[in-house]
Amino acid sequence: MDIQSYMTALGEKARAASRALARADTGAKNAALLHIADAMMAAQTVLIAENARDLDQGKKNGLDTAFLDRLELTAERIASMAEGLREIVALPDPVGEIGDLSYRPTGIQVGRMRVPLGVIGIIYESRPNVTADAAALCLKSGNAAILRGGSEAKHSNQAIAAVIHAGLEKAGLPQDAVQVIATTDRAAVGKLITMPQYVDVIVPRGGKGLIKRISAEAKVPVIKHLHGVCHVFIDAAADLDKAVAIAFNAKCHRYAVCNAMETLLVDKSVAAEVLPRLATEYAKENVELRGCLRTRDILVGINAASDADWDEEYLAPILSIRVVDGLDEAIAHIHQHSSEHTEAIVTENYTRARRFLAEVDSASVMVNASTRFADGFEYGLGAEIGISTDKIHVRGPVGLEGLTSQKYIVLGDGHIRT
Amino acid sequence: MDIQSYMTALGEKARAASRALARADTGAKNAALLHIADAMMAAQTVLIAENARDLDQGKKNGLDTAFLDRLELTAERIASMAEGLREIVALPDPVGEIGDLSYRPTGIQVGRMRVPLGVIGIIYESRPNVTADAAALCLKSGNAAILRGGSEAKHSNQAIAAVIHAGLEKAGLPQDAVQVIATTDRAAVGKLITMPQYVDVIVPRGGKGLIKRISAEAKVPVIKHLHGVCHVFIDAAADLDKAVAIAFNAKCHRYAVCNAMETLLVDKSVAAEVLPRLATEYAKENVELRGCLRTRDILVGINAASDADWDEEYLAPILSIRVVDGLDEAIAHIHQHSSEHTEAIVTENYTRARRFLAEVDSASVMVNASTRFADGFEYGLGAEIGISTDKIHVRGPVGLEGLTSQKYIVLGDGHIRT
Repeated sequence: MDIQSYMTALGEKARAASRALARADTGAKNAALLHIADAMMAAQTVLIAENARDLDQGKKNGLDTAFLDRLELTAERIASMAEGLREIVALPDPVGEIGDLSYRPTGIQVGRMRVPLGVIGIIYESRPNVTADAAALCLKSGNAAILRGGSEAKHSNQAIAAVIHAGLEKAGLPQDAVQVIATTDRAAVGKLITMPQYVDVIVPRGGKGLIKRISAEAKVPVIKHLHGVCHVFIDAAADLDKAVAIAFNAKCHRYAVCNAMETLLVDKSVAAEVLPRLATEYAKENVELRGCLRTRDILVGINAASDADWDEEYLAPILSIRVVDGLDEAIAHIHQHSSEHTEAIVTENYTRARRFLAEVDSASVMVNASTRFADGFEYGLGAEIGISTDKIHVRGPVGLEGLTSQKYIVLGDGHIRT
Repeated sequence: MDIQSYMTALGEKARAASRALARADTGAKNAALLHIADAMMAAQTVLIAENARDLDQGKKNGLDTAFLDRLELTAERIASMAEGLREIVALPDPVGEIGDLSYRPTGIQVGRMRVPLGVIGIIYESRPNVTADAAALCLKSGNAAILRGGSEAKHSNQAIAAVIHAGLEKAGLPQDAVQVIATTDRAAVGKLITMPQYVDVIVPRGGKGLIKRISAEAKVPVIKHLHGVCHVFIDAAADLDKAVAIAFNAKCHRYAVCNAMETLLVDKSVAAEVLPRLATEYAKENVELRGCLRTRDILVGINAASDADWDEEYLAPILSIRVVDGLDEAIAHIHQHSSEHTEAIVTENYTRARRFLAEVDSASVMVNASTRFADGFEYGLGAEIGISTDKIHVRGPVGLEGLTSQKYIVLGDGHIRT
């Protein structure tokens, strides 16, 4: 296979399909999503059989149990994918929304219309349900999608692609609106991220390594979802009951998620009171604590945090703790070590709450709430394609609106500029 | 000079200053702008003297008259720069605006706060007034700026930088908020566009060559302002008086601007009536017409348009004209040849106006108005830093809002996720 011409052809077809999709009305897009959901339920046997081929190969290749679990499609997971498609039907269509339309002194009317980005390239790793989720979000937002899943899921992904094509066809939309790259050659990714004439934005979903490599090599804008080194700061004026509840929830509700807290910062004036209470809670969940010097004066016997700990995304029952002199030191620590994903302050002090909100430079900044709320569903966006830690274009959970842009529209009546 | 460490130091200082600037209130930023305006008027003699050094060198280097004209600072131009600063004072400060704040079923309140991007790198060519304009827009939007002007304007730009620093200091803001790169070594640009840890976005202002080179080499997001190959389409249902007025204005109001029309598309059913009327008008301004076959059947004797003409940004009294079969062919031509800057339809037909607005994929799409309106001032944004032909982040004229991002804020009362 000649990867260069294969990818160019994919790009041309995506660009052409994106024009048709941009014109498609909400009804047609919703119909396609429902047809895909139906086709997915009907194809359950085929999907499980194709997935079994990937699982067999994965076992032969020595993939670990966690990986194989993420890769597996069960009847329940297929039903859940179909349900995900139906939920996207229920979300409002952002395309064509016109805002801020107002008259200018010259007599022209100027506003902004929300429009699809065009063609979105999505690069992801093992979980095959991303194929359906990502395709559905792109479709609903009027974008054509080129998807590149992990090679370990190739049969599963192609089977899901066939289901998507059947649904698109039934709704009268071009099948090229969603293309799943058929080759597992890595050169295909290299080409995908360097053809700005065909691809408008790249969304990489996966580990830090994948995302950094793609960001470094791309010639197309990338919406990055980097890791989450999230902080909770317990302020001097914190309600300590709320502090214990939030710091416990932010760490222990789920470990392997990007919005889990990795570092706890505690004001020195409340550290002696709150840290022992928290240590008792964390001990129940066997969370390993790693502290700064002042933390270890209070929680005698815990491990020392090394310099590297402050930058670590554990994704595990491990927590680093630092006692700080106050808000300024907390914010300075966050700006130095945060991945700009999500940070929270626990405080009853109005001025410090307001300063934390204004000054902390992260995608989500919270007062008296658990970092675990940083999520598209919790924010009311519906399904998300990722959580952007970029500042450009979109920050935080990326839903349908994040996959659109706004163009200016001008309405006149023969107006000329003088 | 070690360019690598010089640029790294600049980046570190800009990042530190950006934190202070993000915290600065509107009053402090406006005070700085007014102090800079005053300092600029007071420094008129120095500015003209430093500019004279650049002009002398330019003449020695054989720069052409148009270039030297753009380079020159006169008393009037200095007053106009100062006035531009005062106009930015009058614009609303976008930073800190909170929108869409609403309660979620869990009880948390979620909204979005507008925040500066951080550090903006601006690369531009000859005109030294860009130094003041760009610095002022970055300052008002709470961003630190690293500016790199053309080497031909180096003394002028450093003199303007000194004025800006005096104004910043007087307002109690860090001088590092605006840094003008002191070296003319091109390696400095190479470093500026490849240090994402210090620079959040690059705005190149200049010719196509500059922008393409920067886009290709940057490892930092770029807000591109590419060329303007703008179209006017005269529909079958056009009011021909409006059509003549708009097509004349879009071409002849000013030639060397990116929102001037370069190609006129005319529906075949009105071509025989409207083209001779337009040709009479264009003849008065000595506009050279280059037509397709069907155009030349009507306007006998004009030059033939070559394939290359359809992609040309003339920036001159030259116009290519094509007769098309209708709206679909017009839109197809635009999608193939437009630079996605600005396109207009002239029509009294409701459905085709609506289709043109929805389907044409350009930063500005107009009905019955001249493409010349595509401008930050005309749209009510105030001063603009450029006109984005990108889809990501911001499209069309880029004012203060385009230099900001939105982060999520979450307000709770001890809320945890269950």
